[in-house]
Amino acid sequence: GGLALAALCYSAARQGVVQSASAQPAAQLNPLKHGLPQGAENLRSHGGFVLSYNNKHRSANWVCEHLTRQSTNTQLGSREDVPFVEDQSIHSLFRSTLDDYKRSGFDRGHLAPAADHKYSQQAIEETFILSNMSPQVGKGFNRDSWARLEGHVRKLTDIYPNVYVCTGPLFLPTREPDGKYYIKYQVIGPNQVAVPTHFFKVVVGEKADQSVEIQSYIMPNAVIPDNQPLTDFLVPLQEVEKASGCSAFLLSALRLIPFNQTSTTPRSIH
Amino acid sequence: GGLALAALCYSAARQGVVQSASAQPAAQLNPLKHGLPQGAENLRSHGGFVLSYNNKHRSANWVCEHLTRQSTNTQLGSREDVPFVEDQSIHSLFRSTLDDYKRSGFDRGHLAPAADHKYSQQAIEETFILSNMSPQVGKGFNRDSWARLEGHVRKLTDIYPNVYVCTGPLFLPTREPDGKYYIKYQVIGPNQVAVPTHFFKVVVGEKADQSVEIQSYIMPNAVIPDNQPLTDFLVPLQEVEKASGCSAFLLSALRLIPFNQTSTTPRSIH
Ligand SMILES: [Mg+2]
Ligand SMILES: [Mg+2]
Repeated sequence: GGLALAALCYSAARQGVVQSASAQPAAQLNPLKHGLPQGAENLRSHGGFVLSYNNKHRSANWVCEHLTRQSTNTQLGSREDVPFVEDQSIHSLFRSTLDDYKRSGFDRGHLAPAADHKYSQQAIEETFILSNMSPQVGKGFNRDSWARLEGHVRKLTDIYPNVYVCTGPLFLPTREPDGKYYIKYQVIGPNQVAVPTHFFKVVVGEKADQSVEIQSYIMPNAVIPDNQPLTDFLVPLQEVEKASGCSAFLLSALRLIPFNQTSTTPRSIH
Repeated sequence: GGLALAALCYSAARQGVVQSASAQPAAQLNPLKHGLPQGAENLRSHGGFVLSYNNKHRSANWVCEHLTRQSTNTQLGSREDVPFVEDQSIHSLFRSTLDDYKRSGFDRGHLAPAADHKYSQQAIEETFILSNMSPQVGKGFNRDSWARLEGHVRKLTDIYPNVYVCTGPLFLPTREPDGKYYIKYQVIGPNQVAVPTHFFKVVVGEKADQSVEIQSYIMPNAVIPDNQPLTDFLVPLQEVEKASGCSAFLLSALRLIPFNQTSTTPRSIH
């Protein structure tokens, strides 16, 4: 049933058309170890990350990464002069293009950050594919507070030898004066790429004894003061699941299925 | 690669957990004959239709049906006293409920119409599952012009022995006074079920000689005058594909892959 199909999709994603070979230590990375997020459509597998593409939004549903002490501490690649490239594996009807972002006022924001994949030149270059981008507010968000969160996640490998990260866009409703709830978001460029209202990050820290701890964040795609603590954006995991439509990342992998033969209850990372 | 995976998903959907056995002639119906729409997440297969569920919208991405002269002309089932039921196969985080529609002002609108499946009581009852519903404007749309379109599709079996239909919600952008484009839609109930701005129907008529003809419609989820001709809502197929994020229905099945060993070019149904 569902699990067998998910396993097939997983295997197809890792072995499929779009997978790229990548240098060590990427070969040992396993971004989906803690589960394949539900609604795993249009999977694309790269050296350092796996993503699910949303044809309607012209961008990813989520991007999964696996960071290790080794991968975050090895620097053999550089982002200097690396160009952004369109994802030719996406049908042209649904593909976001360089044109879509041009003069939009939004940054081409990495979902899997370039700085997570400095362990090889090929891996860092693969993060510049447009299917890994989402329109982000530049100053005050992508270049500032969101980057702070990304740095925080990388530093977690000091505590947890393996860190699994799932990042994606959200489109959250607001209550309007008529008392009803509406979802409203801008679309940019000729292909109408959706501008998310928020972004989420779910981080799983795996200790040497295989026990796991979780942090979940939701941040608005907006200017956030540089001195606002990241802990302000911590949310219960279920809030991310309900809004993103993805439950498997942790819900099934950690709550329902005994983890590594032991029933580990996830706790918040202290 | 993709095709093999699609085939697996197809087979999983038809054989999977959620499939229900159904009486003749449903056993001979093949709603996906002309292709599995791309982005085929969360498939659920019923006697008379196959749907893909969208966890974020709490409703279907699309519903595929296969109508035949026999299935539309056999009346062994009735919708009288058939209750609407929640889809227990959908995780409770993402499931739409009876409560969501209550006092929302919107109808529980069938995507696969009950009237398409009168050939058996079981088949007609299965269309009352909430995953086959979308919030629709009642008077002037669901009960009127949209029902006119559904009747028109059933009548096409007079001309085409086999009719394949794909129906789904759309969320289309509008240009606002600031010159930018926005997608905006209401969400209803505790589970925030998305109210589509439009609905589409792609209809494939298959003649006895196996050649095929296509009609594609987009109608706004709004009051439409009873005397407005359905032909006003005909659109190029590609418009549906681009907006729905689904390309396979016809694009791959009819345009790219030679149909039944002959390169049939789809034409509009006259
Ligand atoms: Mg960034
Ligand atoms: Mg109806």
